[in-house]
Amino acid sequence: MTLAVELLAVGTELLLGQLQDTNTSYVAKHLADAGIDVYGTHAVGDNQGRIAQAMRESLARADGVIATGGLGPTVDDLTKEAVAAALGLDLELHERSLAQMQEFFAIVGREMRENNRKQAYVPRGSFVLENPRGTAPGFIAFNDEGKFVACMPGVPREMKPMLSDILIPYLRERYKLTEAIHTRVLHTVNVGESEVDHRIADLFRSSENPKIAVLAHENLCDIKLMAKAASADAAARLIAPLETQMRERLQGFIFGVDGETIESIVHDRLALHGATVAVAESCTGGRIASALTATPGASKTFVGGIVAYDNAVKIEQLGVREETLARHGAVSEGTVLEMARGVRERLGTTYGLSVTGIAGPDGGTAEKPVGLVWFGFADAHASSARSFTFRGDRAAIQRRASVMALGLFWHRLVTTGS
Amino acid sequence: MTLAVELLAVGTELLLGQLQDTNTSYVAKHLADAGIDVYGTHAVGDNQGRIAQAMRESLARADGVIATGGLGPTVDDLTKEAVAAALGLDLELHERSLAQMQEFFAIVGREMRENNRKQAYVPRGSFVLENPRGTAPGFIAFNDEGKFVACMPGVPREMKPMLSDILIPYLRERYKLTEAIHTRVLHTVNVGESEVDHRIADLFRSSENPKIAVLAHENLCDIKLMAKAASADAAARLIAPLETQMRERLQGFIFGVDGETIESIVHDRLALHGATVAVAESCTGGRIASALTATPGASKTFVGGIVAYDNAVKIEQLGVREETLARHGAVSEGTVLEMARGVRERLGTTYGLSVTGIAGPDGGTAEKPVGLVWFGFADAHASSARSFTFRGDRAAIQRRASVMALGLFWHRLVTTGS
Repeated sequence: MTLAVELLAVGTELLLGQLQDTNTSYVAKHLADAGIDVYGTHAVGDNQGRIAQAMRESLARADGVIATGGLGPTVDDLTKEAVAAALGLDLELHERSLAQMQEFFAIVGREMRENNRKQAYVPRGSFVLENPRGTAPGFIAFNDEGKFVACMPGVPREMKPMLSDILIPYLRERYKLTEAIHTRVLHTVNVGESEVDHRIADLFRSSENPKIAVLAHENLCDIKLMAKAASADAAARLIAPLETQMRERLQGFIFGVDGETIESIVHDRLALHGATVAVAESCTGGRIASALTATPGASKTFVGGIVAYDNAVKIEQLGVREETLARHGAVSEGTVLEMARGVRERLGTTYGLSVTGIAGPDGGTAEKPVGLVWFGFADAHASSARSFTFRGDRAAIQRRASVMALGLFWHRLVTTGS
Repeated sequence: MTLAVELLAVGTELLLGQLQDTNTSYVAKHLADAGIDVYGTHAVGDNQGRIAQAMRESLARADGVIATGGLGPTVDDLTKEAVAAALGLDLELHERSLAQMQEFFAIVGREMRENNRKQAYVPRGSFVLENPRGTAPGFIAFNDEGKFVACMPGVPREMKPMLSDILIPYLRERYKLTEAIHTRVLHTVNVGESEVDHRIADLFRSSENPKIAVLAHENLCDIKLMAKAASADAAARLIAPLETQMRERLQGFIFGVDGETIESIVHDRLALHGATVAVAESCTGGRIASALTATPGASKTFVGGIVAYDNAVKIEQLGVREETLARHGAVSEGTVLEMARGVRERLGTTYGLSVTGIAGPDGGTAEKPVGLVWFGFADAHASSARSFTFRGDRAAIQRRASVMALGLFWHRLVTTGS
């Protein structure tokens, strides 16, 4: 069987551009991974008539609608009333949801107001989607033709587990989506989307199952492999040989899979050898340290960093020689090498990593244009440096340089067997 | 006159959740600021029939459709063909766009391929929206009833100037939206949304023109005032007294207006007095330095920072005493004060700013829970510290603590008259 839905986000703030809707993209991705098609997505304001109209129109095109938002306790929250109108159903009190809501308020120590009671009503005949993280339950209601409207809260931390743990398994069961889906994401770093495309173009064109998608962002490029088969194991077996081919074509660029990040991989590799790192940053201004400290438990391998924005800081805190700065400039091979050695020695780590560059918009010259960034590396035995010139505005150069620094470091750790 | 439109984003990647659509929110915000209503927003895949159907349905509800995406040179780019089908118009070559495209390719030194020619075609009778930043022109085409479909490229840096500089002025002129709109955004820091609501609730309820909207994100809360009047001056005059009231109600919290950020305000205030700052970060891991270096010209006032993740770095690079760490711990008033003084002295700045806390998920105790963060401040004459306990996950605690650090620093600069 197949199942095709449309998505509906409810909230006047979305139509005023006051809130960036991230739910739609999140739901769409997880439905795709579960083999459920999305024909279209929509957003309407807190207006019962428009919500109901949008639902009716979607039901004419698709098998169901998945809506987010508008389940709160206020007078502006009208999604439920709209579902009742669109499907011709009454709202009825769901006793268990009311009891859970009363329990929830008791636990958080807040008084339950009368308008919260409204949240325990659902369209007649609904299957209720429990919400352990908030007050509003979700639900899925049906019309006479067996088409459905599913509603979830707009708060992402309430919506996400409801979608993955309850709604998607329910839909796959009810609509007999027996085909199992298996996805595998290969993460590459420091290789452009066009180079990836070039290397895998023939596979991309010839492979129907698994399907291949290439998603580029900054200096990271993800290759998503998605297979359908009778069982999860069978789907995984379809992916394995393609992954092997991908790994041959993209040797040296794939750093991780699925939920792994370049930061988590760097931490894992350092931890494996009991090694530590310190970073010296100029143009990236703390972004590499930020990335490395985003991972829980970072303190095992990340010791600290020096943001040496001013040359005096490079000299005094990192030991860069005045002569090097005077002769070669702050953005140079000599400076970046002394930064890497300096931060490693002073912070007493296994490795030192350094970055200095021109993020712009000012400060570029013909010889050293905006976007020029030097990367440095030092350990007890060796040091090395390389430069790259990035395109884009200040923010893009800073972000891309941070990712590339971690990518180069990872590559170094792997190729030296550390 | 009034004008109501619907928005349409085109691209299969949007339905698969592979790309977060940021255009819709951006266009919606700028239309709201120009007094143009948005009834709904939609996204469909690269399918000519579905694009045309979505356009026809939107035209039945609204005065026009504003679409983004699908104007590229590939076979997947079908927006233009769909507009022609939806409005019953032929496509015709726009000679000037072709000439501009040829010139564009000559400048960037790339060969113009045959499929790029397709981008110079527009529906008959269109008003062409020039695109100096790319190859695909936009256009606005009309049906017999005077309803319109406007199409812009999906690439944000091409779409944004086309929207603000050409499309919105064109629509306001053509549909005689003579009422001028004036908006003013007041930015607050370190005050919760509920406290803001509480302080301005009566104004919020009673004020129809200007309208008031409250938008909270992390420790920042924006108050948007939006007035309509016969002229821009008259609209600004409607806002002025309300702004005065807001400033009375929210004294000490409003740090800037419109395009200003907490970082830019901190830089401006430091520059005004020829002062400089250095930061010592533990749990924020470089995020405050990152924020301060996001602003062009940051080097005038931001000298550098020490990310002192490991206690050894706190001792050796910042001069925190071992005794302080042993007696009070890394997350304590004593440690944060020594960090602020240390980074100020060692980096030779006017001010030292410091943060140490427990970002989690592990490392919390009953006495010092996850989310506890100490903030420190030092200048030549004084030092001070305060703590705050944040809710949320590791990433939220890190982001919120970074914003609060800058907010507290701004407050200190203002109240001491620096």
